Amino acid sequence: MRRELGNPRLLRVMNERRLLDRLHDHGPASRADLAKVTGLSKPTVSAALAGLADDGLVHLVGEVSGRPGPVTSLYDMNAGSAHVAGIDIGRDWNRVVVADLRGSIVGRKDGRNEARNTADLARHVRELAHAAAAEAGLEWSAITCAVAGTPGVYDPVAGRLDFAYNLPGADLVERLRSALEPDLVIENDINLAAVGEHAYGEGRGKAHFALVSIGTGVGMGIVVNGELYVGARGAAGEVSYLPATEDPPAAGDPVLLEHGSTEVVASAPGVVRAARAAGLDLGSAKKVFEAAGRGDPTALAVVEAEGQRIGGLVVAVAAVLDPEVIVLSGGVGRNLDLLGGAIERRVAALGPLRPRVVASALGDSGVLLGAVARARKRAWELIFEARLG
Amino acid sequence: MRRELGNPRLLRVMNERRLLDRLHDHGPASRADLAKVTGLSKPTVSAALAGLADDGLVHLVGEVSGRPGPVTSLYDMNAGSAHVAGIDIGRDWNRVVVADLRGSIVGRKDGRNEARNTADLARHVRELAHAAAAEAGLEWSAITCAVAGTPGVYDPVAGRLDFAYNLPGADLVERLRSALEPDLVIENDINLAAVGEHAYGEGRGKAHFALVSIGTGVGMGIVVNGELYVGARGAAGEVSYLPATEDPPAAGDPVLLEHGSTEVVASAPGVVRAARAAGLDLGSAKKVFEAAGRGDPTALAVVEAEGQRIGGLVVAVAAVLDPEVIVLSGGVGRNLDLLGGAIERRVAALGPLRPRVVASALGDSGVLLGAVARARKRAWELIFEARLG
Repeated sequence: MRRELGNPRLLRVMNERRLLDRLHDHGPASRADLAKVTGLSKPTVSAALAGLADDGLVHLVGEVSGRPGPVTSLYDMNAGSAHVAGIDIGRDWNRVVVADLRGSIVGRKDGRNEARNTADLARHVRELAHAAAAEAGLEWSAITCAVAGTPGVYDPVAGRLDFAYNLPGADLVERLRSALEPDLVIENDINLAAVGEHAYGEGRGKAHFALVSIGTGVGMGIVVNGELYVGARGAAGEVSYLPATEDPPAAGDPVLLEHGSTEVVASAPGVVRAARAAGLDLGSAKKVFEAAGRGDPTALAVVEAEGQRIGGLVVAVAAVLDPEVIVLSGGVGRNLDLLGGAIERRVAALGPLRPRVVASALGDSGVLLGAVARARKRAWELIFEARLG
Repeated sequence: MRRELGNPRLLRVMNERRLLDRLHDHGPASRADLAKVTGLSKPTVSAALAGLADDGLVHLVGEVSGRPGPVTSLYDMNAGSAHVAGIDIGRDWNRVVVADLRGSIVGRKDGRNEARNTADLARHVRELAHAAAAEAGLEWSAITCAVAGTPGVYDPVAGRLDFAYNLPGADLVERLRSALEPDLVIENDINLAAVGEHAYGEGRGKAHFALVSIGTGVGMGIVVNGELYVGARGAAGEVSYLPATEDPPAAGDPVLLEHGSTEVVASAPGVVRAARAAGLDLGSAKKVFEAAGRGDPTALAVVEAEGQRIGGLVVAVAAVLDPEVIVLSGGVGRNLDLLGGAIERRVAALGPLRPRVVASALGDSGVLLGAVARARKRAWELIFEARLG
């Protein structure tokens, strides 16, 4: 430690980082302000700002002349000095955003996922990525790093995506890596949705919370002590495999090996199946919820049963994790207005736990925003690693 | 920070702590060894050791003369310079141990809990505590701090024990505090069992694991990133309320408000009830497992059904937490030799998750050992707080 502190380059980069962190979090400031809040001397601040400005990471954004004394220059982080990409690879849609270092979105492309193999899928994501970069006036090669959310559990040691039964093929990760050259991180999509909710949505300021996504699949992202928790093998929150208490598939049913008991009954296909069994032949869960919203009594009964299933899931999550809040998202989960009553009834019937349940604030963009949050954090580290040489 | 480092007393206590931490973890060492491993100068080490020896925290334990050069004095932490107590308050037994600073047990008293109200219970624990201290040749007032495990969730703000339905009365915490004067910390017993398993048992060296206790009640203690995780309101791991998938009580049954769906069916009373329903009138779960061990076919069928229920619980825990290992403990859970096959069958039937399940290494002593581990950690902090004045 003592020896490290004597390393002048490390010391310089640590000082630069203190200044950039401050500008990143609080916006423009004068040299005198920066010296005061960081405790660094004014000559040290001036030297560090000059170095950062030479490399384009800091720029002069204005001058304050209203105060007594000489005109004061205001510096800010140059948010456009680097860009990151967030990618959401879903069963129905692929989406790419490009954002600057402060998270402002400067390009976005969404496209229907019609790929039937991994080569097509990687090509489609690559096209969207280049188009999103072009919208921001950038080459894709100028992106500092990209984070992609996919279903399943990515095993970084084996380089393999497990449990991704809603996507085609096993070589997806390799294909994505060669289609998207820059630094690419793969993360479970629901984990990223939790990161997004923590950064921008209902999880803001929460130490412990869970995001439960119910749509094509069922999954959960967990934040513990303010950080994403993924478990020992990255499979934490795979609540699709939680034993369902309402209408469970028969034990040993082969469908369980892929989709899991809770996913079979509680996901969007489960809702469609339940509606059909009740005599309501609608093509999607969305249509079932629309019919319930119009007061159709059969649809209302289907939604009631779905709410009861989600109530059981919510109690299971609360009994294990006791989160501050459970955020519901996904095509089914977002209908909390219609599901809320049934969830509450089931929770009350199961015992004294009373978890707080709210709907996601981020809609379809949760995964993307989480990917951007993760990519910004990573870009920040890469910038200072590069400055250390 | 810079001003704090200039505080000479703080600096001295920080140096003392480095030396004591080293002696605590690695045992006897010479002044020269301590100077080498801590990076402190020899005069600083000598002065700090002298101060610690004056206060009885360090003592001379021998001399090394086999090496060339003058005889070298060996110092060690004086493990007997302070003592802590671990207390386990259970429905059937109360237990108290007294341990020194290295965790060596110097006194222990166990007694059947026959108390029917909190005054009796507090009196009984006080008697055991004084007797355990006397066995160690100590007055109870010499104990630096005590940690007590009880069922239920202790709310430190309200000073109230919630969900402790297996214990009498609501004023237990107050009564314990006045019966046991020293610094007393109350913690959920199963959380302490997880701490004990982490310090001494199957959780050693594990970053993420869960201890599931199935006995009179059902509960779980969770370790995340090497630390006990208790959730937003201290109710994490209250898996008694997990919706049971096998033989669940009817939703809304009043028993659910106290015991929870999984506790009703999977706890020791649930096993006795299931045995009785199968025509086997045995007074305790222990006797049911003994009969199964002798090959009684009815008892074996009861144990199979219990293993299937625990299999569902284990899959639920793995689907949420993905721990490195799930440790089973408690009067029922410890019978993994008899339950293991049924647990595996149920896990395989529910999907692809394959959690590793092992039996606790600590038997009846898990809560006590966790209480001691927690108390030693707290005593360590109290010692340095006292030295800071």
